[in-house]
Amino acid sequence: MSFRLPTYLHPDFKKPPFDAAPEVVFKGVEHTGVAPLNYHATSIYPEYFHMGKGEWRLLRETRMDCVVTREKNGSLVVKEFRHLKPGDQVACGRAEDGVEGIFVNSDPFGAEADDARGFAFRTRITRETSFSIDYDQLYDLLDHERKKGSILWVLGPAVVFDRDARNAFALLVRRGYVHAMLAGNALAVHDVEASLFGTALGQEVYSKQAAPLGHYHHLDAINRIREVGSIEKGVFDGTVSTGVMRALIKKNVPYVLAGSIRDDGPLPGVIADVYTAQDQMRALACRATTVIALATQLHAIATGNMVPCYQVTEDNSVRPVFFYIVDMSEFAVNKLANRGSLSARSILTNVQDFVVTLERGLRKRVS
Amino acid sequence: MSFRLPTYLHPDFKKPPFDAAPEVVFKGVEHTGVAPLNYHATSIYPEYFHMGKGEWRLLRETRMDCVVTREKNGSLVVKEFRHLKPGDQVACGRAEDGVEGIFVNSDPFGAEADDARGFAFRTRITRETSFSIDYDQLYDLLDHERKKGSILWVLGPAVVFDRDARNAFALLVRRGYVHAMLAGNALAVHDVEASLFGTALGQEVYSKQAAPLGHYHHLDAINRIREVGSIEKGVFDGTVSTGVMRALIKKNVPYVLAGSIRDDGPLPGVIADVYTAQDQMRALACRATTVIALATQLHAIATGNMVPCYQVTEDNSVRPVFFYIVDMSEFAVNKLANRGSLSARSILTNVQDFVVTLERGLRKRVS
Amino acid sequence: MSFRLPTYLHPDFKKPPFDAAPEVVFKGVEHTGVAPLNYHATSIYPEYFHMGKGEWRLLRETRMDCVVTREKNGSLVVKEFRHLKPGDQVACGRAEDGVEGIFVNSDPFGAEADDARGFAFRTRITRETSFSIDYDQLYDLLDHERKKGSILWVLGPAVVFDRDARNAFALLVRRGYVHAMLAGNALAVHDVEASLFGTALGQEVYSKQAAPLGHYHHLDAINRIREVGSIEKGVFDGTVSTGVMRALIKKNVPYVLAGSIRDDGPLPGVIADVYTAQDQMRALACRATTVIALATQLHAIATGNMVPCYQVTEDNSVRPVFFYIVDMSEFAVNKLANRGSLSARSILTNVQDFVVTLERGLRKRVS
Amino acid sequence: MSFRLPTYLHPDFKKPPFDAAPEVVFKGVEHTGVAPLNYHATSIYPEYFHMGKGEWRLLRETRMDCVVTREKNGSLVVKEFRHLKPGDQVACGRAEDGVEGIFVNSDPFGAEADDARGFAFRTRITRETSFSIDYDQLYDLLDHERKKGSILWVLGPAVVFDRDARNAFALLVRRGYVHAMLAGNALAVHDVEASLFGTALGQEVYSKQAAPLGHYHHLDAINRIREVGSIEKGVFDGTVSTGVMRALIKKNVPYVLAGSIRDDGPLPGVIADVYTAQDQMRALACRATTVIALATQLHAIATGNMVPCYQVTEDNSVRPVFFYIVDMSEFAVNKLANRGSLSARSILTNVQDFVVTLERGLRKRVS
Repeated sequence: MSFRLPTYLHPDFKKPPFDAAPEVVFKGVEHTGVAPLNYHATSIYPEYFHMGKGEWRLLRETRMDCVVTREKNGSLVVKEFRHLKPGDQVACGRAEDGVEGIFVNSDPFGAEADDARGFAFRTRITRETSFSIDYDQLYDLLDHERKKGSILWVLGPAVVFDRDARNAFALLVRRGYVHAMLAGNALAVHDVEASLFGTALGQEVYSKQAAPLGHYHHLDAINRIREVGSIEKGVFDGTVSTGVMRALIKKNVPYVLAGSIRDDGPLPGVIADVYTAQDQMRALACRATTVIALATQLHAIATGNMVPCYQVTEDNSVRPVFFYIVDMSEFAVNKLANRGSLSARSILTNVQDFVVTLERGLRKRVS
Repeated sequence: MSFRLPTYLHPDFKKPPFDAAPEVVFKGVEHTGVAPLNYHATSIYPEYFHMGKGEWRLLRETRMDCVVTREKNGSLVVKEFRHLKPGDQVACGRAEDGVEGIFVNSDPFGAEADDARGFAFRTRITRETSFSIDYDQLYDLLDHERKKGSILWVLGPAVVFDRDARNAFALLVRRGYVHAMLAGNALAVHDVEASLFGTALGQEVYSKQAAPLGHYHHLDAINRIREVGSIEKGVFDGTVSTGVMRALIKKNVPYVLAGSIRDDGPLPGVIADVYTAQDQMRALACRATTVIALATQLHAIATGNMVPCYQVTEDNSVRPVFFYIVDMSEFAVNKLANRGSLSARSILTNVQDFVVTLERGLRKRVS
Repeated sequence: MSFRLPTYLHPDFKKPPFDAAPEVVFKGVEHTGVAPLNYHATSIYPEYFHMGKGEWRLLRETRMDCVVTREKNGSLVVKEFRHLKPGDQVACGRAEDGVEGIFVNSDPFGAEADDARGFAFRTRITRETSFSIDYDQLYDLLDHERKKGSILWVLGPAVVFDRDARNAFALLVRRGYVHAMLAGNALAVHDVEASLFGTALGQEVYSKQAAPLGHYHHLDAINRIREVGSIEKGVFDGTVSTGVMRALIKKNVPYVLAGSIRDDGPLPGVIADVYTAQDQMRALACRATTVIALATQLHAIATGNMVPCYQVTEDNSVRPVFFYIVDMSEFAVNKLANRGSLSARSILTNVQDFVVTLERGLRKRVS
Repeated sequence: MSFRLPTYLHPDFKKPPFDAAPEVVFKGVEHTGVAPLNYHATSIYPEYFHMGKGEWRLLRETRMDCVVTREKNGSLVVKEFRHLKPGDQVACGRAEDGVEGIFVNSDPFGAEADDARGFAFRTRITRETSFSIDYDQLYDLLDHERKKGSILWVLGPAVVFDRDARNAFALLVRRGYVHAMLAGNALAVHDVEASLFGTALGQEVYSKQAAPLGHYHHLDAINRIREVGSIEKGVFDGTVSTGVMRALIKKNVPYVLAGSIRDDGPLPGVIADVYTAQDQMRALACRATTVIALATQLHAIATGNMVPCYQVTEDNSVRPVFFYIVDMSEFAVNKLANRGSLSARSILTNVQDFVVTLERGLRKRVS
């Protein structure tokens, strides 16, 4: 296979200005959840902290908009403000070029080839941008990641609103292309509704016919699972006999269902506290080497906030994290870019087509 | 003023089939949070329950997708599934026409005049639909509601991303056009950021210039308020000297800031548990006589789920609840309609223009 | 195969009010291009004109927003206002129910089954509406139409901006699924550009790389074809060796390239006069039994205006014309609906995915 | 007033590489409408051609994607390919830096201040970008241009679909803020329909009520004007008593109504040949110092193709041409950017609000 990971550009800390840079300064937290003045906030990029004597330590399991604490065992931890406790030692300094002992490596894998001389059309991604190549690259990437990486999917409910897309995603799970899943209550509700009644919000997922009293279906699905006790129990007792949740549970794929104010129910297992949900999402996100977000602005941006642009592998090499967002709207894509999640690649299409096409393309590889 | 509320069409329960209808059946809850089989789910419409002897009782403070319990004092309460406790008596029956003792009055205020004979163009609301009249009706409506109703605003952060829109909304608060506000962490964060730094996500709210190190601003704003202890304290000690949050707090307007997985921080006062947040949102929503949702799909749909199409006033008359959604996207509007919140009126425009125009139009009235 | 055309509901003209209806009145045109007062305007529906003695004549090759003239040979012709000449006899009357001798059959094939009792979610088509079934129905429909109907495609340039979509569409042409094509200058320009340079607007259609001096490519493509004399000559002399235009020309599929004010060039063969272009488009449109419009608002609406909802077949039976619009935007779809082209079915996705998926699905049938 | 035009950065042709640059080469056209090999294509930027002896001549009245001919009188003319005649002398060379005698000044007015150090959020214009400042800048700009410049408006029909927006635009015309107007048949049709019937496509422009038989209104409006002979005659005989077209005609503001394949009618005066229409549009566009395109992708892109980023004033100084596009869709804005019309500023809102707000803001200035 032609797939090859790009090479990480290691900074040379023996050169100026690094060789003369001071140690990074840590200051103590005084009030719970409040960082000291001049705290350093993390980015999506590899960041190095000068711990003294020329040791520049790379952050692991980082994410943007957090602070860095030095733990008692000397390790550096990337922490949300809300987790700060009095006495925590927080790295300070806002210069990103090393002069305060902090270096943000904002070009970690080299700029992409850019041969646009002078003037070029079509510098922005729109619905008219071609994406055959994105599929082909994804086939290669996902085949690589299935064995050697960790693929995190972030799903909006549209994935289970359509019969073929729902089946295709369940197949991707079964074939090992899904290492973790993040979603909300609605994804699980309508997936269970489809299993119990063949509908989503009362509309049949294939024929689109409105079912009689179909507006009860999602409530009946929730009520049924609440009675059974959990989605897991529903899967194992046969109540939930098809779909995405069943595939995940059967395959022991970890997932987080984060609650939102839009929820009915909720289903058992949905996390009511959004910051607890963030913590659990991050626990999955910080292992991911590829993230694919499908038709969900809320969860895509939440995940984009948590995922750095790199991952340190077991053999201590640094590799990129690939982040794809698939959505119908230029706005969603631009909004993610405006949050600073600059490394996301966008595919502007309907996720129903995307999932079905992706599954078909990967299937050919396997067989 | 020309404003007049439409008249409620009271059902005549002395006529068939109501006169021969049975009492509604209540069944006991067995498991916490689980409704009995054949439970009745509420809608946005006025619903009547036959309590016996010809007494058809109208629900108050209802919302869709809940169940109805008969409390020990005999009152009927509209309850989310998650609040059900063993022994609760839940109304059962899915027929909506009275034959099971439940009547859903799905045409409470008469169909709007519809003179489309045979064939008509332009039956759907799009960005090309005129809306001069919507402004004029809103001026009348809001002037009426300011004194005699309760206006609930649901805000997306775009309202505070622009200087003039932010100022205009603060003026609406001060002039009494805002009786309650629902939003998320981001609205408050960027409003406070604008007060402290003049920016939103680091971009100046008037000049659009990127401020130096501006990507620290929203974190600095959160950190500062966490240090102060609350937004309220920040307002009263002068830290927060301008903006929407200040106007609300100064005027004692109740608000709910609901957490989401997208949040940085969060600010003190943001509710982490989304179902607690729902409860508090509903406590405000069930008083509302007019709801206006601006540029937020998440909060607009959440609120749409909670707001019925009618309100029972102090003198026991039934009046409509007006629900406006202002957004840039036909999708957002259609999505709300597809959830069953059918009575929403849509205005397709940028909320920055909407808020500024509305404030200006209302100001003329007052002066 | 399971495909079956729905049955036409023939009106019974022996019943009231038809049996007592007067003959339709014709009035003479006085000024070129001006219809007489009270002219009747056509719709997309089957319309019958009472010619006397109980003969109700059905319009053929009709379109909306035209008038009906009685020619010297007695035939009825549906004519654009701009083609009216002094002396033309124009049918008058605006009642659609027969009382003026004109009957508009606005429910020609029976309402679709609609079992929505009382209340239903999801009555509008959005990006979240499932469409697996649309593909399956299209496979059946297109297989039927390939042999027994006439499939008219209306193409926006996005179809040729992507390598795989461009190849897939060319395959559809070669396999006989394309009986006629309507498009603009841009479709042909970028198709030829892709053949000559592998780019569209200077961006490679597979790799998305910006080609050096790529902004010259579309001009060079136009200039080259102008030098050669026509796209046809370019195809036959080997200048244009791949793509959609080549496939059409090789297969003798008729097409219209209509000019617009946005054009560079134009290519030879593009029709500069838009009303001449309309006439030529209509000549193809009035034979169509299925129309599929891909990612072009301008051409989709223009074609929608020209295509009635029915076709009279050679054996004088009446069958429906199927009209699909595939687009990314709810707005485009609603806009078509608001023009009165009510019978269009919408698929909200990226046409690149649509064309590739459709070709793959149809290929399986054949093999 | 604070308005000041930015200063043009004149290239210094005495410096390298200009001082050693050859004369630009001209080659003769052999076939009508076909440029010679290696022709130079124009851009939106100021371009200079070395005519010999150190004379670098600046193009006037240029537009992108054309060629440059040396006329018999020695002048340079920017010409569309379709206007080339055998013998025409066309400038050749594709280097833009002067080494072939052609210099494209792609930074004519200095880069805008860009203080984004390192990393910044919000680099893209979306619906959440603030635009108070755009209004204020437009008030200053339009007041300046009313007297000292030339303001070209490009209108989509949405401007006349709403009563208040239609009235506001007519006021802008009357007050001198409109020096020329480009639109299509639909703008004029619905403007006349509003004057005759108070509707647009049959829907009342204020109340939104569907008028009885309202789908006849636009046809009746067209038919009436065709009978009268022209929109101008309709204005002067009182047939057309309100609206945008009346205001333009009364004020002698030149306009072009370009035909499209979507047209009904057309109205007299609509130009059927799109390339003739382009020529007439360009005749107005090449005088413009500010262009404002409202809710029309077709006409906005067509005009964007014709308008350079600068204008040479009577006193031979070089000033920028300001180009605003107001639309609901990020796609429309990105599409214009992808065509190379890079200097456009975008405002993402509904043009109904935009026009009403603009008129109100400008009115205050005058009074």
